[in-house]
Amino acid sequence: MLKSNPAYLGCEADYDEARIVLFGAPFDSTTSFRPGTRFASATMRSESYGLELYSPYQDLHMDDIKVFDAGDLELCFGDTAKALAQIEEFTAEILAAGKKPFMIGGEHLVSLGAVRAVRKKYPDLHIVHFDAHTDLREEYLGAPLSHATVLRRIWDMVGDDRIWQYGIRSGEKAEFEWAKTHVHQHRYDVNNISAALAALQGKPVYLTVDLDVLDPAYFPGTGTPEPCGVSVKELREALMQLGELNIVGCDLVELSPHYDTSGASTAAALHIWRELLLRLERPYLVRPETV
Amino acid sequence: MLKSNPAYLGCEADYDEARIVLFGAPFDSTTSFRPGTRFASATMRSESYGLELYSPYQDLHMDDIKVFDAGDLELCFGDTAKALAQIEEFTAEILAAGKKPFMIGGEHLVSLGAVRAVRKKYPDLHIVHFDAHTDLREEYLGAPLSHATVLRRIWDMVGDDRIWQYGIRSGEKAEFEWAKTHVHQHRYDVNNISAALAALQGKPVYLTVDLDVLDPAYFPGTGTPEPCGVSVKELREALMQLGELNIVGCDLVELSPHYDTSGASTAAALHIWRELLLRLERPYLVRPETV
Amino acid sequence: MLKSNPAYLGCEADYDEARIVLFGAPFDSTTSFRPGTRFASATMRSESYGLELYSPYQDLHMDDIKVFDAGDLELCFGDTAKALAQIEEFTAEILAAGKKPFMIGGEHLVSLGAVRAVRKKYPDLHIVHFDAHTDLREEYLGAPLSHATVLRRIWDMVGDDRIWQYGIRSGEKAEFEWAKTHVHQHRYDVNNISAALAALQGKPVYLTVDLDVLDPAYFPGTGTPEPCGVSVKELREALMQLGELNIVGCDLVELSPHYDTSGASTAAALHIWRELLLRLERPYLVRPETV
Amino acid sequence: MLKSNPAYLGCEADYDEARIVLFGAPFDSTTSFRPGTRFASATMRSESYGLELYSPYQDLHMDDIKVFDAGDLELCFGDTAKALAQIEEFTAEILAAGKKPFMIGGEHLVSLGAVRAVRKKYPDLHIVHFDAHTDLREEYLGAPLSHATVLRRIWDMVGDDRIWQYGIRSGEKAEFEWAKTHVHQHRYDVNNISAALAALQGKPVYLTVDLDVLDPAYFPGTGTPEPCGVSVKELREALMQLGELNIVGCDLVELSPHYDTSGASTAAALHIWRELLLRLERPYLVRPETV
Amino acid sequence: MLKSNPAYLGCEADYDEARIVLFGAPFDSTTSFRPGTRFASATMRSESYGLELYSPYQDLHMDDIKVFDAGDLELCFGDTAKALAQIEEFTAEILAAGKKPFMIGGEHLVSLGAVRAVRKKYPDLHIVHFDAHTDLREEYLGAPLSHATVLRRIWDMVGDDRIWQYGIRSGEKAEFEWAKTHVHQHRYDVNNISAALAALQGKPVYLTVDLDVLDPAYFPGTGTPEPCGVSVKELREALMQLGELNIVGCDLVELSPHYDTSGASTAAALHIWRELLLRLERPYLVRPETV
Amino acid sequence: MLKSNPAYLGCEADYDEARIVLFGAPFDSTTSFRPGTRFASATMRSESYGLELYSPYQDLHMDDIKVFDAGDLELCFGDTAKALAQIEEFTAEILAAGKKPFMIGGEHLVSLGAVRAVRKKYPDLHIVHFDAHTDLREEYLGAPLSHATVLRRIWDMVGDDRIWQYGIRSGEKAEFEWAKTHVHQHRYDVNNISAALAALQGKPVYLTVDLDVLDPAYFPGTGTPEPCGVSVKELREALMQLGELNIVGCDLVELSPHYDTSGASTAAALHIWRELLLRLERPYLVRPETV
Repeated sequence: MLKSNPAYLGCEADYDEARIVLFGAPFDSTTSFRPGTRFASATMRSESYGLELYSPYQDLHMDDIKVFDAGDLELCFGDTAKALAQIEEFTAEILAAGKKPFMIGGEHLVSLGAVRAVRKKYPDLHIVHFDAHTDLREEYLGAPLSHATVLRRIWDMVGDDRIWQYGIRSGEKAEFEWAKTHVHQHRYDVNNISAALAALQGKPVYLTVDLDVLDPAYFPGTGTPEPCGVSVKELREALMQLGELNIVGCDLVELSPHYDTSGASTAAALHIWRELLLRLERPYLVRPETV
Repeated sequence: MLKSNPAYLGCEADYDEARIVLFGAPFDSTTSFRPGTRFASATMRSESYGLELYSPYQDLHMDDIKVFDAGDLELCFGDTAKALAQIEEFTAEILAAGKKPFMIGGEHLVSLGAVRAVRKKYPDLHIVHFDAHTDLREEYLGAPLSHATVLRRIWDMVGDDRIWQYGIRSGEKAEFEWAKTHVHQHRYDVNNISAALAALQGKPVYLTVDLDVLDPAYFPGTGTPEPCGVSVKELREALMQLGELNIVGCDLVELSPHYDTSGASTAAALHIWRELLLRLERPYLVRPETV
Repeated sequence: MLKSNPAYLGCEADYDEARIVLFGAPFDSTTSFRPGTRFASATMRSESYGLELYSPYQDLHMDDIKVFDAGDLELCFGDTAKALAQIEEFTAEILAAGKKPFMIGGEHLVSLGAVRAVRKKYPDLHIVHFDAHTDLREEYLGAPLSHATVLRRIWDMVGDDRIWQYGIRSGEKAEFEWAKTHVHQHRYDVNNISAALAALQGKPVYLTVDLDVLDPAYFPGTGTPEPCGVSVKELREALMQLGELNIVGCDLVELSPHYDTSGASTAAALHIWRELLLRLERPYLVRPETV
Repeated sequence: MLKSNPAYLGCEADYDEARIVLFGAPFDSTTSFRPGTRFASATMRSESYGLELYSPYQDLHMDDIKVFDAGDLELCFGDTAKALAQIEEFTAEILAAGKKPFMIGGEHLVSLGAVRAVRKKYPDLHIVHFDAHTDLREEYLGAPLSHATVLRRIWDMVGDDRIWQYGIRSGEKAEFEWAKTHVHQHRYDVNNISAALAALQGKPVYLTVDLDVLDPAYFPGTGTPEPCGVSVKELREALMQLGELNIVGCDLVELSPHYDTSGASTAAALHIWRELLLRLERPYLVRPETV
Repeated sequence: MLKSNPAYLGCEADYDEARIVLFGAPFDSTTSFRPGTRFASATMRSESYGLELYSPYQDLHMDDIKVFDAGDLELCFGDTAKALAQIEEFTAEILAAGKKPFMIGGEHLVSLGAVRAVRKKYPDLHIVHFDAHTDLREEYLGAPLSHATVLRRIWDMVGDDRIWQYGIRSGEKAEFEWAKTHVHQHRYDVNNISAALAALQGKPVYLTVDLDVLDPAYFPGTGTPEPCGVSVKELREALMQLGELNIVGCDLVELSPHYDTSGASTAAALHIWRELLLRLERPYLVRPETV
Repeated sequence: MLKSNPAYLGCEADYDEARIVLFGAPFDSTTSFRPGTRFASATMRSESYGLELYSPYQDLHMDDIKVFDAGDLELCFGDTAKALAQIEEFTAEILAAGKKPFMIGGEHLVSLGAVRAVRKKYPDLHIVHFDAHTDLREEYLGAPLSHATVLRRIWDMVGDDRIWQYGIRSGEKAEFEWAKTHVHQHRYDVNNISAALAALQGKPVYLTVDLDVLDPAYFPGTGTPEPCGVSVKELREALMQLGELNIVGCDLVELSPHYDTSGASTAAALHIWRELLLRLERPYLVRPETV
């Protein structure tokens, strides 16, 4: 696996020593409204050089973590099934090497490719999902594979009561109805995750974070800004709590950097990215009693 | 009256069946600082196609409401009196057909045209006004007709104690002084509207929402961003409470979409627009006990 | 067929009386570099209201032409084959009604959908193609259906010596080699079209104009600006000459309006659009001797 | 300590010694399409600090000229007649002091205010007009005072055969027809001005330059970019020739700087501004034989 | 006739009567990530014309204060030591005249120039510092003079326990460690300033506000947006409390206006600027009992 | 020397086999007007992936050339002398390995660092310089090291008659005067380079291309756009002719990509970059008789 140079700041570990493999999935072909998430990973990598490697929030330093940056996949635009297969294959390769995949989207559909591979390795996989949107449609504009159907496709695999949703505030009425009997859905905010923490102890968890769960005040750089979301601080704190679970893979999706010329959205994505990476690596960095 | 095609999403009712008539008033000639509100309605109409028709907040669906989109008026730029007359005439036509006008500005002055027509039909008209600015000058740069004088011109018609202002945080000292004896003015936030609710029960109310009452964090896309405003959630919740009044006409003004390249301001305006439309139509949609 | 309201300025004819049917094909899912052509038709329609209807170049007026604006198709993003089928079907409907299709892209691949329908009606179809790029790849990133393969796919249908290319200045070496024995290719400029005029007299011609044939100085608003192209004046004059042929369908593609914040690219596209529409309708408007 | 006083670079003469008085007329209320020319003069003044004061084209230096920068007028937005009266009065004051007015628009209508004052002093006034548009409408959107009628309003004053137009390529058919018998109109380019030079020798001339006469490639920063115009070099050379006439006032209008984020349009406007100022002052700077 | 002289709105006092001298320090040469703060002061001055002079928060009016706007310094780009010397000299001149310096940056390093001069006059100088970043590096990219070292350079002068930091949330681990024994550092928010108020009573205080202490939601227009900051309201209220101290000089730095096309960041900077100026002048404006 | 991954498209040769070493010098600290050239190389590298590797103009392919991309230097902002020393040292390393340096600026001053190293190896060095500006000042804003003095500093080394300038159209009068007796200066266009070709046969030549020699119509993305320059085609053709000389090093400077949101300026820079690389490598690629 070829190393990106320059890599995401702080992700210069060699492949062999790395516990986490970071990669971009620049795909946005099913985006129905405003494309642009294809530029997310390259922009984040470049802007990461304006970031501090040290987190005062966790008192941890990225120099101490072991992350390999594999660069961005070259995905086939316009052929959705093929692009998903490429992502699945790449994720499987990471898992086969005993490493953890950390993917940067792209539109939310890319999560399906990664989850397919992760599910094969962990048949008892559960999902924690942050998002403004339900993403539970059966199909969208006639297509079963779409950013708006991605959690439904994942449900096809994992089944009832395996998906925990937070921050949801937009969707079709039918999706909200359907959700009541098939997934754990928590609307509007990212509080009260203790139920999930209790239920998911020891289980393999895939964490998928659609960054539009954030309020557009904090994260305007996305294709479909949805008002009345959560703050960066609230999202970070929820993720810190989830860090005690057995997270076997994760992704951050739906940053569309060109729509925010200030760069604040990319900075928010990188903040979450740094804190999440450090949280995932924390068990290897410090003795439990010092945290 | 000609129907817009495409119409604002969810506003495809025929004229005859419609209870509400939506129209744009793209006028910004008196804007003294940064023009651009003329683009608001066309942008909102176009961007509405990225919106969900269902509101989880009210559990209501726009498929069930009856709104006719009459498109945007062609107003005379540079001749303010003439433009206002055009708006008044168009509003009067809507009222004469027994329908309710819902106007999208344009600069705030367009409200004057609409209120003139509404006042003729409802002589006991009261005003609820959300804004960052007092808009109570006697004249501005020598002109009596201006975005900065519009509530004063409305006061000329309706008189003392008929105007309730919320969120005000900018104006001349003289305006704040004058307001003390002529209007009900609540500064800085949109809380405590119970006094207005009590006082206005059963009275005809025109609701005018200058969207710059929102904090620029949530709504940077406006000509004169004024710090320290309210959140979209706070504004929505205040409007939901006001929905129990007899609102006989309303407007949303001062979105200047080009100043916010992320589209988040337009998304905020559309959020308020959807929730307000649904709130106005709620009595016709559901039995009170189910809400 | 539903009429757009507002329609492109000057295209308000009723369907029955129209000789030309204008429609948008907002699709850009195979765009590999920078998406955004999906916004072209809606932007052109809106900006057309800043345009004069009269052409001093041809001394003709758009009030006199008969064009119906059918609005923009709702195409399935992410499923390329399906989107092309939608375009083909719509084009076929126009042709079946004895009218001429005039399509606004979208990426260049949309031409394939239209040409499929046109070819069915006119088996002896020839193509005149303006472009910076050869678009003659056998496949692109593993996909046979792509903006970079569209003329090759059209060649699959029409065969050797039926395609006349102008302004070509970018492509793979293999494409340039292949072109020598299969198509008429004229590089760099749009001069010397007399050979095409002579060869195509009386034949049915589909005209496809990738606007990136223009120099980026005149047309920066496109996904892949390619230096050293032609001027708007040169393109217009070439199209005027081609107007004497039997053009049975045409398109303008690859405007990506958001990349040019000045609006000059959209204005250039509308200039070509107006002049081409007038040229196509000229035989019905004036007696030959008066031109 | 110097008080904040940035004048246009090179225009720091005292009022008493100045031969030319420069001022901005930031008005765009009648602009029907895209406003923004109100920002032109302030932007040009600020950007002038990136300019060289020396012209290699004329071998002249702005340190040697005598120009007073009076700043930008505070004009009443929304009351067109009042704004024009302000401009007329200010121009008259300049003329009364024996100085020459040089105005930076603003939309083209501001020329009317200046010409009214100049005509009072010079009853035999002639006009040289560079523009993409005829601006000869009798009225526009019901208004007689508009950017689209300004030359017609000037004709009302000066009458037949006193207006020489260059570069015209857009307008209504009726305007082009009317022009044939009332003004000297030269379409498309700015060549062949020898007829004007011969006819206007010794006569007082007001020069009004709508910068959209330039091709949008060179000048995208304007409200209504019109393709197929002239280059900066062509415009400059035409103005150099006109410099031998008795130019008693002039203006540059219709720069809308925000539409061109590169600043190239402002740079083009400043280039024309510098060369024109130097040309007007040339008789006072060098002995004729050395030019 | 008034010569072009736009001062910051409300800062038109003559030098002799002024208590405060305002000036810009447009320097950003050491900015390592995204330059642009050089444009801050000119933009704020220009945008100040969209501001109200009256503060409802303090019930004070800028017409009553005595501020002289000295314009923006012409600093040498690329020679950091020289630029700092220019700032120091200019600040010293203001202090020598018995006036108070109020500087608008520029990058944060400009504070060093001002503090050098202020410290010479007030050897017992203390610093109150609002910022997202510690700015306490010993050197940065090999340079001791940098935006990232500025507070450390100031500490070189003033020594231990003289610097009070608020809102800090980003820096190297070593900086956070160092801070514990050398400065008073309050992380994340700007609350709890009572300790500073108590400790600094009667002492000369220099106040330096790096505006990126604000959350990027409120202030995206800065070179290095750092998530999870404070609101404009929180910053204003903290500054109001500090106003009771003996502030002998102050600055606002790190606005980079071009990165926020909405202008909201500039509006936030101007809000803080107005409120701080009024707070500094309050003792001269009103009797204590009326506030 | 570390290899960039991703590298500039087509520049993936290993260091040992490479004849040319490409590197970026992202420095713009002395830029007095609008900074941003620091982003040029990273943007060009990223955008190179939208480029064709084959040149139809030369019938050559980048797959056949041997270029190593060393990435972008980390230069010290704010310490000009230090940054230049870094560039000189890096260039010397390339030369010592028997390879040819090809630098992407950065502001024009970076050329000084490269030329210092090249001159040490080639004492008889001559310079060919394309630019809008003379860059011959003795000092600028008090600094001898500046983008505006760079050719004068180079002249300090190489002396009279060794510098050939093309396209010059802006500078101080004194610079133009000085140039007459010290350098070969050709104004306004890039024609007539036959004199240079004749004089420089067999001599070592450093080629420095300030891309603002291009007209802003073709290249708006630069800090100081200067009207009336040359086209991309004209510049390319001049460079093709110069390719027969013994070019021992070269650079392309002054692209400021953020000022051109369309990407056309970056595309123009990449066009020149590809054609120049191919021209330099042509002797190794094809037999002379086949060109």
